[in-house]
Amino acid sequence: MQEVQQNQPLKTDDDFLREAIRLAREGMTTGQGGPFGSVVVKDGQIVGQGCNQVTSTNDPTAHAEVVAIRDACQNLGTFQLDGCTLYASCEPCPMCLGAIYWARPSRIVFGAFHYDAARAGFDDHFIYQEIEKPREERHIPMQQTLRDEANTVFDEWIAMDIRTLY
Amino acid sequence: MQEVQQNQPLKTDDDFLREAIRLAREGMTTGQGGPFGSVVVKDGQIVGQGCNQVTSTNDPTAHAEVVAIRDACQNLGTFQLDGCTLYASCEPCPMCLGAIYWARPSRIVFGAFHYDAARAGFDDHFIYQEIEKPREERHIPMQQTLRDEANTVFDEWIAMDIRTLY
Repeated sequence: MQEVQQNQPLKTDDDFLREAIRLAREGMTTGQGGPFGSVVVKDGQIVGQGCNQVTSTNDPTAHAEVVAIRDACQNLGTFQLDGCTLYASCEPCPMCLGAIYWARPSRIVFGAFHYDAARAGFDDHFIYQEIEKPREERHIPMQQTLRDEANTVFDEWIAMDIRTLY
Repeated sequence: MQEVQQNQPLKTDDDFLREAIRLAREGMTTGQGGPFGSVVVKDGQIVGQGCNQVTSTNDPTAHAEVVAIRDACQNLGTFQLDGCTLYASCEPCPMCLGAIYWARPSRIVFGAFHYDAARAGFDDHFIYQEIEKPREERHIPMQQTLRDEANTVFDEWIAMDIRTLY
């Protein structure tokens, strides 16, 4: 985590969101990936940050919010972001919104809408539409099989004495 | 990537899905995380694999499918999984389904349904419901601001001569 270099502490939602937008621009101009940035804030301090790094790291999951969530969790030593606010330069795509729900920050503040991202050539809006469809109507075919065998692992999980829930 | 140790090559969808289920059980019993596994297959060969590692790595995004996608992309040196099939021991959660759409494999084969995961204590079904809601009705509050400032980064992206699309 890099500390934000400012003489005055960042205070408002607008200040933190502007930092996410600054990271978006910086990541784009330095060739890290698409024009997206994100910061995670706890108790008025940035505890994690990231920009999109999909193309520079060959990682299609390295969206700004995912990078920022992973950074914050490493810095805080936890897999839950209780009491944190996630700031994103653009409305989270379904993958990132899912990641946010698993990390469970208290709130989200974002700048552009996902249809703004679509204008710039990103598939966010398409993926939202796909997820809302019944699985048999989606563009990527989904086939289901071996349900009973797969469920035995859940049965064993439920029966375990010691398991860490998340 | 670990090669699968078998005398006979894996061939069918059921074989590859059973390998994903095996990884789910192995990850659970070795304390890596929840009971989920995934493999990515190209041209009849496993090119990436993973199990859930959320609790052992403090990474809420380390679901089996995300781990397998990242592994496959590193092994193939690409951020796109054209021509690949993703096998998952359980139907992908919204985060993983989003990750799959960004990685763009040709098809998905899964075992248990997401409501089976819910039975074992996982939030997949809840998150599907949340993503389908209008943003103002979701449990994690989402606030929007600074749209114009955020959009200037998209304008700059569109105007760039050299940019890698994904």
